[in-house]
Amino acid sequence: MAKPLIALDWGTTRARAFLIGEDGAVLAKRVADRGIQSVPSGGFPAAFAEIAGELRRARPDAAVLLAGMVGSRNGWVEAPYVACPARAEDIAAAGLVVTLDDGTRATVLPGLSYDDGAFDVMRGEETLIVGLGLADGVACLPGTHSKWVEVEGGRITRFASFMTGEVYGLLREQSILSRLASQPIGDDAAEGASRGLAAARRPGGLLNAAFHARSEVLAGRMSGGAVGPYLSALLVAQEIEGARALFGGLANLKLVADGVLAQSYGRALAAAGLDHALVTPEDAFVAGVSRLARDLAA
Amino acid sequence: MAKPLIALDWGTTRARAFLIGEDGAVLAKRVADRGIQSVPSGGFPAAFAEIAGELRRARPDAAVLLAGMVGSRNGWVEAPYVACPARAEDIAAAGLVVTLDDGTRATVLPGLSYDDGAFDVMRGEETLIVGLGLADGVACLPGTHSKWVEVEGGRITRFASFMTGEVYGLLREQSILSRLASQPIGDDAAEGASRGLAAARRPGGLLNAAFHARSEVLAGRMSGGAVGPYLSALLVAQEIEGARALFGGLANLKLVADGVLAQSYGRALAAAGLDHALVTPEDAFVAGVSRLARDLAA
Repeated sequence: MAKPLIALDWGTTRARAFLIGEDGAVLAKRVADRGIQSVPSGGFPAAFAEIAGELRRARPDAAVLLAGMVGSRNGWVEAPYVACPARAEDIAAAGLVVTLDDGTRATVLPGLSYDDGAFDVMRGEETLIVGLGLADGVACLPGTHSKWVEVEGGRITRFASFMTGEVYGLLREQSILSRLASQPIGDDAAEGASRGLAAARRPGGLLNAAFHARSEVLAGRMSGGAVGPYLSALLVAQEIEGARALFGGLANLKLVADGVLAQSYGRALAAAGLDHALVTPEDAFVAGVSRLARDLAA
Repeated sequence: MAKPLIALDWGTTRARAFLIGEDGAVLAKRVADRGIQSVPSGGFPAAFAEIAGELRRARPDAAVLLAGMVGSRNGWVEAPYVACPARAEDIAAAGLVVTLDDGTRATVLPGLSYDDGAFDVMRGEETLIVGLGLADGVACLPGTHSKWVEVEGGRITRFASFMTGEVYGLLREQSILSRLASQPIGDDAAEGASRGLAAARRPGGLLNAAFHARSEVLAGRMSGGAVGPYLSALLVAQEIEGARALFGGLANLKLVADGVLAQSYGRALAAAGLDHALVTPEDAFVAGVSRLARDLAA
């Protein structure tokens, strides 16, 4: 890399800023509750200075790259989606230039769209995918709205979103099941996960298997602490089956996750007979922005 | 029937009381927001008098039958579940006697349980199933927690619950989709339903297809008014596929529904290539309690 890089993963509720050296190493990191929904119209230059001003003062020569919802309709500037299939170069080339409060230029990266009759979009995940450096394979990025992404010949060819994390939250916190659910203790987490994975293989589907969490607890056959892990495992297994139906064998699979999501998806993938390599979202992001910054500088 | 009958369909949030003549005709009907969750411990005789006192005064000689959540742990008395397979006679025989405030005896009907490794229960629906007078067939009872019930040789052999109505409410009212959803106008309902049924046939499954409601609206390809009908059709179609996977061909299918549920399930069953006969919940309940009252009197 010719110059150091300041890169922001700037989402709806949070911003993560990285100062990345010429050699690709992370020199400094800032996390702020300064997602785009907290930024008033016209307030982005000031918000940027608040989040990353210190990093800028440390390396005033750094290039600045902004990824994620900051490029959406409610962000700094709307960077239109790039349609799949798309290469890293296509993503970099569609970046839009904005001006920081000191007049320095920064690039807002676009998201991707995919249309096979049903429209789908992502913003932010494309940068992590680039960072995986995949030639051919599939990546799973778990979250509120999980993404599964296919890469062929170095191009992002197809992807699909799953409302797994959001539906988990609704069932765990807002449904009739929430009254029975409690914090897992002892073996609850392992028991719930193992039963949820088994439930996903039953023929009745998600709407039926979710109800069993209620009746099994009422019958005294499952503890309340197992309800959350049961639902999580059930939903993740359903997501994996959906992805397999869409993308086939899922060879050369990368799981981009850390913490509890790495754990729950790792277990569900193993139960589905799928090997995977684990990459942390931070590593993928840093590698992705570094690659896109090289494309922009070229 | 030897005597007239006062029968209550007494659920969690509501009670429906019927005065049924010797010939099986409904002579009077009362609906009250007096579900069991509004009744304090020990308050059931008084609540019954409030709901059905007028019917009792009209026909003091009537037998009294109580069905639904009134027989649950939080009801008047807990009438333990009868395990499937079960005949109408088995359900009647498991009724528990309680005493009204004037000393008259009333019978609280039990629910049913089914256990094929995953436990499932119903309370109230068993009475409607009895009322269908099915020898062999399958019944679909849509609702917050829909039930599908198999009858063979006049016995209720298997059933399954689906959280369809509840998940619809969560997605429509509490999820990220609710911000995009609006009241259907013009062709929205028909368009949403038709697209939801098509979406259910896509390989990615429910968690993926639900997200498309968001991206299609954001892309300007679907109206906000179509979001609710889309989700409803998608979920109902998923329920039907789950039931088909559990119970096979679904020959001789009865749909126990009225109003919008009769409409949405009717459309989804037709799209799935399934014939059905429609029975209203009230007709099924009245026929069911009349039959169970005969069994009790026998």
